[in-house]
Amino acid sequence: MTPRTTADLTTPALVVDAAAFDHNIATMSAALAGARLRPHVKATKSTALAKRQREAGHTNFTCATVREVEVMAAAGLGDDLLLANEVVDARRLGAVAASGARITVAIDSAATLAAAVAGGVHECVIDVNVGLPRCGIAPDKAGALADDARAAGLNVRGVMGYEGHVVGNPDRAMRVAQCEAAMDLLLQAHKDVGGDLVSAGGTGTYDINTWANEIQAGSYSLMDTAYDKLELPFKQALFVLSTVVSVSDSFAVCDAGLKSLGMDHGNPLLPADVGEVWFCSDEHITYGPAATPAVGDRVRVTPAHVDPTVAYHDTMWVTDGESIVDQFPVDMRGW
Amino acid sequence: MTPRTTADLTTPALVVDAAAFDHNIATMSAALAGARLRPHVKATKSTALAKRQREAGHTNFTCATVREVEVMAAAGLGDDLLLANEVVDARRLGAVAASGARITVAIDSAATLAAAVAGGVHECVIDVNVGLPRCGIAPDKAGALADDARAAGLNVRGVMGYEGHVVGNPDRAMRVAQCEAAMDLLLQAHKDVGGDLVSAGGTGTYDINTWANEIQAGSYSLMDTAYDKLELPFKQALFVLSTVVSVSDSFAVCDAGLKSLGMDHGNPLLPADVGEVWFCSDEHITYGPAATPAVGDRVRVTPAHVDPTVAYHDTMWVTDGESIVDQFPVDMRGW
Repeated sequence: MTPRTTADLTTPALVVDAAAFDHNIATMSAALAGARLRPHVKATKSTALAKRQREAGHTNFTCATVREVEVMAAAGLGDDLLLANEVVDARRLGAVAASGARITVAIDSAATLAAAVAGGVHECVIDVNVGLPRCGIAPDKAGALADDARAAGLNVRGVMGYEGHVVGNPDRAMRVAQCEAAMDLLLQAHKDVGGDLVSAGGTGTYDINTWANEIQAGSYSLMDTAYDKLELPFKQALFVLSTVVSVSDSFAVCDAGLKSLGMDHGNPLLPADVGEVWFCSDEHITYGPAATPAVGDRVRVTPAHVDPTVAYHDTMWVTDGESIVDQFPVDMRGW
Repeated sequence: MTPRTTADLTTPALVVDAAAFDHNIATMSAALAGARLRPHVKATKSTALAKRQREAGHTNFTCATVREVEVMAAAGLGDDLLLANEVVDARRLGAVAASGARITVAIDSAATLAAAVAGGVHECVIDVNVGLPRCGIAPDKAGALADDARAAGLNVRGVMGYEGHVVGNPDRAMRVAQCEAAMDLLLQAHKDVGGDLVSAGGTGTYDINTWANEIQAGSYSLMDTAYDKLELPFKQALFVLSTVVSVSDSFAVCDAGLKSLGMDHGNPLLPADVGEVWFCSDEHITYGPAATPAVGDRVRVTPAHVDPTVAYHDTMWVTDGESIVDQFPVDMRGW
């Protein structure tokens, strides 16, 4: 049976507020039109949601996994897919490229360059370390890697460098200063690398990072409590709908647990008039209620981190009040 | 292509060491034979794995979700399934019971009793709060709820009470004392409730909890770094296999991130000769290597918490060294 209202949903269920989502998509496309935004699909993992971003004018997308690239291309969203990540085996990417999608892969070493060539991928960007201790080559070595890539027959489209150590800083002035420092490194590398793309950024620096020429933001469409601290113009659109299953004298329990919520950013948030989270178990949140609830009451839980939350679910139900108006299958899980 | 060795696996991939797993199953069934163990499937979410537990003599199982009950019954594992959890809508459970499986549901309130009856479930246990602030009725009210349940036509099979506040205590003497105090409450309730079942326990109290007559342990078959602190006789059998994708001067990066690992218990562990985890991103672990690795090296990561880790994956690959000897599909995800 297709659920028509939230009352028809088995809980825990991932729900998306349609008005907040539409606001987020419109706000971002007004700020970063067309190719200025390369939406990152890793947070949302849904081709149905990505199609809404394309309808808003964004035809180029960022992916974090090979699976995401495959599923995006199969869904007809393969105009320009950047795998913003290193891979050691690029054969599945090469197969997607051979099917007609435009595939660009990040490389930061001779090994990942060789993997791209061996896998049949024809285009790359040089991933540059701009301060986050993760992937990326040192800025002063980027040009030599680009030379090697071109010598190996790859089209080097430019550079990328993710300022992940910056995007979550709640102090906007510090975010600006740190972002500029990171992008100085990226632009320095870009001088040596060449190409059209200077790809960087995320939801937390979407309006700060004016140095990159495309921004890889994804979380903005759904939001979470971590990004909410940054006072961005995006609204919380993602919730885990849960049901109160047990009520005691001093606490209550609803059925959204840590298997329905990414927990790396800590506990989720309940509405102030519902109560305060005490702790999460596998299938439960124990909370101190603001007013005594009844077993069967529904509670909307706000996740602390959108990405690992979405990855636990197979569907996002799009809601207008309690009516279900659409659904976004989470069709890019796994690797 | 069916993978024959771990080299054929796309990473991150969940792998189970066959020898450690077999050791764990044998060790537990020697300690708690047959119906003394009611394996909890929530940690492992695989009917193939549950069949290995049944082969070891355990025919009765514990579930945490309605989905787990449905899938276990459909796999022919429905001899005696206890949903050790409250539900407000029991219609899907009633449908499973009508198909011939034996279904028992936990109740702790008039509302969950009414839901069981309305949903067509015929058997219940009274869930008793034994100290963990989660579900369960106060011990002194359990008898009255049992009376109401019998008056409503339910077969009340006994009591359950999970000492979840005890099972992780690394001090064994304290675990024993706290377990006894919790089980005092459960036995007090059992006097008033009656029935055959006194169901409790977990991996951390499997050999301590001699008051319950069946133990709901599940994690023992795979283990994690949290349970490993308890000095139990079970071996670490579960790993996330990853690939080194980037190497810098002072750190390296492998491709097992927080979307492949439950993070509520903190960071995963790397082998000492591989290095120390710095932090986890969505798709990466940044670590300080013990010796400089090469891009392409494989790393086995030990999860901090088995349950939410398994729930991110669709398959556990069973390995003997680097050979793949079996697979356990993770077929009980979702709700």
